[in-house]
Amino acid sequence: MSINNNEASANNSPATGGLVSVSWNADHVEMLDQRLLPEVIEFLDLTTAEQVWEAIRNLTVRGAPAIGISAAFGVYLGIRGSAGGDRASLATEVVKIADYLATSRPTAVNLFWALDRMKRRAGELAAESGEVAEMKEALLEEAKQIQAEDEETCRMIGEHALTLFTDGMGVLTHCNAGGLATAKYGTALAPMYLAQERGMKLKVFADETRPVLQGARLTAFELQQAGVDVTLICDNMAGMVMSKGWVQAVIVGTDRVAANGDVANKIGTYSVAVLAKAHGIPVYVACPLSTIDLNTPTGDEIPIEERHEDEITQGFGKRTAPKGVKVFNPAFDVTPNEYVTAIITEKGIVRAPYEEGLRKLFE
Amino acid sequence: MSINNNEASANNSPATGGLVSVSWNADHVEMLDQRLLPEVIEFLDLTTAEQVWEAIRNLTVRGAPAIGISAAFGVYLGIRGSAGGDRASLATEVVKIADYLATSRPTAVNLFWALDRMKRRAGELAAESGEVAEMKEALLEEAKQIQAEDEETCRMIGEHALTLFTDGMGVLTHCNAGGLATAKYGTALAPMYLAQERGMKLKVFADETRPVLQGARLTAFELQQAGVDVTLICDNMAGMVMSKGWVQAVIVGTDRVAANGDVANKIGTYSVAVLAKAHGIPVYVACPLSTIDLNTPTGDEIPIEERHEDEITQGFGKRTAPKGVKVFNPAFDVTPNEYVTAIITEKGIVRAPYEEGLRKLFE
Repeated sequence: MSINNNEASANNSPATGGLVSVSWNADHVEMLDQRLLPEVIEFLDLTTAEQVWEAIRNLTVRGAPAIGISAAFGVYLGIRGSAGGDRASLATEVVKIADYLATSRPTAVNLFWALDRMKRRAGELAAESGEVAEMKEALLEEAKQIQAEDEETCRMIGEHALTLFTDGMGVLTHCNAGGLATAKYGTALAPMYLAQERGMKLKVFADETRPVLQGARLTAFELQQAGVDVTLICDNMAGMVMSKGWVQAVIVGTDRVAANGDVANKIGTYSVAVLAKAHGIPVYVACPLSTIDLNTPTGDEIPIEERHEDEITQGFGKRTAPKGVKVFNPAFDVTPNEYVTAIITEKGIVRAPYEEGLRKLFE
Repeated sequence: MSINNNEASANNSPATGGLVSVSWNADHVEMLDQRLLPEVIEFLDLTTAEQVWEAIRNLTVRGAPAIGISAAFGVYLGIRGSAGGDRASLATEVVKIADYLATSRPTAVNLFWALDRMKRRAGELAAESGEVAEMKEALLEEAKQIQAEDEETCRMIGEHALTLFTDGMGVLTHCNAGGLATAKYGTALAPMYLAQERGMKLKVFADETRPVLQGARLTAFELQQAGVDVTLICDNMAGMVMSKGWVQAVIVGTDRVAANGDVANKIGTYSVAVLAKAHGIPVYVACPLSTIDLNTPTGDEIPIEERHEDEITQGFGKRTAPKGVKVFNPAFDVTPNEYVTAIITEKGIVRAPYEEGLRKLFE
């Protein structure tokens, strides 16, 4: 389905002012092609695990929670056609498909979290008696459950985050941690939607977020659709905007939080955090518990994906750099915990020392 | 003239590894269209002051010294067809044309410096006896002289800057203060060309410099052509690259230095400078004396040009942000003197306190 942006969308989520990035539709995954936004709103019908793998890899879907949800549905797509055998052999297939889907992208831990949850659920179901077909249905239900929980999780993150904001505040965000990155509401953008619903005015600055421009294409789009006051800037303008006193808080999402509170997020987050600290501006990181990885001790152990140079040299369908030039294109960077004022989860707000605070969330 | 980038250029300057951005050719200004680089190398023939005004405004030519040179030639183009009168009336015309050309862009002081120099020269010539035609020729010579001096000035800036660099150093630069921004060599890039000529290895990181991508299109191109080791990054990667210990110095050009050492330069320079300071990396600003404006007390008094939102929302011939979104698009920012480790001029290196050091340069 492809519709022009100026027309209304059928698959519209008013709370985010936008669209549902991933959903189950009768017998397939309906996925918004986020690469085409904001000009074209097109949903792809995915029917195989391979298609989901490719959609994660090529950024059709992006945003840590949305990747996790997609992968969970991908597991189901991968096993639903499985011919025979018993529940135990189906569980083995789930592990195989999940391990395959885990190779799509390396940094966002929600991907592995969601796949582990599907594997665990398969293990439980294998231990129960019953038809294989029923087990398949139960796996689909698990994926739907992951999605449903994410929506509630995001709403709770928004509630907690909102306690840190006041009317009239300037808030800067980087990349897109909005409704499009999650089931609904987003993480970093959740408080903005809740503020909007309650008549609280925030003035949002959205970094465009090179090279893939998620800030320009997705965040500015989502917030504009919802009627939130949003101003688009280039990444290199953040320092100037801060120096003018226009920003009272920075809030971003994350792809993985290490046990010590180091935060991996979209490339440029570290620069924004250093700039914020230099200007005395707090830096908030919003994420579900599924993004916190206690098995990763520090940010140094988080694998940072490097992507193809074309994203930088011809990211707009037009070559903007000389052929053959060397390029460094990390998709993420790590912000050390000393730059993080607070981590906002569905279970509440954690501040330093993070080691202790994050561990307690899981008790 | 339009040639493919893969072919050799007729108007080639080996010292910059690149091209001459502005030159006088028989009876007109030959100007490289920098908007089309690096894919297309095209020179425009300009024959009127209006064409020069437009070329400065629309970024056909950019870079503070190159703008000054262009404007000086523009003055001559504006008066050469002047019908009659005497030398005094020609001088009045020069003032009129110069004041008109001064309205093309507000921030780079070299523009006003070069125009003032042309007006002053016209005043001198008006006081002398002789044919009006000779006076016209003398004004053309003055413009050529501005260009010739700029080349020597840049070379001297490079010599002084090189004393701050050592073999194997990582150097980050923002925007383009290279051969294309000046008569030759550039300001910030001059030491890189001299280092290359002398077998000293520098590892350069070039910020792509949104929105107009002068770093990707011009700096990476120039340095690549000259065989300098250059790596292109997005602006928001500068912090990460610094945190990895890959950068030992930042060097940039400037469009205007205030009397107190505050520096106006391409948007994003301030962010880079704050990041550098946080990482203990020195920030060098390279410029000719003509960029230093003792009549501007501090950076607060430097007018900052804001440009059209299209540069951000559809800068690459393709819309990358939603229609109607608010945009903030300042072309420059001001880096306060506390972030500037040294200012490198053709007369030597100045360090804080700048008020005193800069004034002495003009004594």
